[in-house]
Amino acid sequence: MPAPLIEQLIDALRILPGVGPKSAQRMAYHLLERDRDGAKQLATVLEESVEHIGHCLQCRTLSETELCHICASHNRDPQLLCIVESPIDVKAVIQATDYKGLFFVLMGHLSPLDGIGPEDIGLDKLAARLDEGAISEVIIATNPTVEGEATSHYIAEMVNKRNMTATRIAHGVPMGGELEYVSGSTLLRAFSGRSTV
Amino acid sequence: MPAPLIEQLIDALRILPGVGPKSAQRMAYHLLERDRDGAKQLATVLEESVEHIGHCLQCRTLSETELCHICASHNRDPQLLCIVESPIDVKAVIQATDYKGLFFVLMGHLSPLDGIGPEDIGLDKLAARLDEGAISEVIIATNPTVEGEATSHYIAEMVNKRNMTATRIAHGVPMGGELEYVSGSTLLRAFSGRSTV
Repeated sequence: MPAPLIEQLIDALRILPGVGPKSAQRMAYHLLERDRDGAKQLATVLEESVEHIGHCLQCRTLSETELCHICASHNRDPQLLCIVESPIDVKAVIQATDYKGLFFVLMGHLSPLDGIGPEDIGLDKLAARLDEGAISEVIIATNPTVEGEATSHYIAEMVNKRNMTATRIAHGVPMGGELEYVSGSTLLRAFSGRSTV
Repeated sequence: MPAPLIEQLIDALRILPGVGPKSAQRMAYHLLERDRDGAKQLATVLEESVEHIGHCLQCRTLSETELCHICASHNRDPQLLCIVESPIDVKAVIQATDYKGLFFVLMGHLSPLDGIGPEDIGLDKLAARLDEGAISEVIIATNPTVEGEATSHYIAEMVNKRNMTATRIAHGVPMGGELEYVSGSTLLRAFSGRSTV
């Protein structure tokens, strides 16, 4: 006999990041007691999303179309290429900055221990793109984690080898943050990256 | 033009309790980048659950069958009836206690301001059940909130009017809790409910 449907639902909800057994249980009962229409809608959209959302052929981000709307746009500067780790980072950059160039989405970072090499994060594709010659500056915006930094160095080398400009976004004390509560490595980076004012 | 599928998915995920725009975004990208099989499975189980899970004819809890497995069981004491607000409370009572009686699930509590009266929480059904005469004790386990307490009083009167026994589960300082951190109303209840040892 299979598990009761409600237990299957609780289990299925646990694939969501940050959802443990207690929240999954609360979600399942909430949906069934108070929002069956929402649950149906969620089921439909989930199915459609899994089926129709693939990757942009040019920048690798999640996209419903062969070219994502950013790559397909004629209003963006094709000389600027910003490298990020994930599609969510594209959204964050667009929302927070006035960056008008294109993106390249690694969908991860180099991580030799997990067997993730340059080709797994599309660096062969990036190399081909750099060789096309349209790009004048590559802005590296990988996360300032160990793996993100390693990936950044690797990409910087790829770019410099081609006599092109690679830049890295600044790291330091976050705006609104207090020196007292910032990690040592952040403060170190903030000092070494100081600029004249 | 409809919103991009990914935005629809983020919106749909926000119906889950405790999920705001940021978590919904993280969930959507997580599913699409890392767990498409899980997302498909979730969609299927959600759909099936909404379709097949209804309410037990006898105790009103969520159930795939006309009678839930508790009401259908022959191993439980039909003289004891525990009244709770929601199906999740049934689970909590069964997991934590050795209670062997039956349940009645209000699927809410009295809340005149929201237009929720006795019939909305099945008290007409409860009255009919009490009149059948099989029950010797009604254990009221609604939440110790204002509405839960009001509901408890209402049910206690229904039971007492029929010369049957109504009991209320104990309220006081939670086990492992510290007096210092417990609310005044809890401490007041703990004092008035003290027993000889």
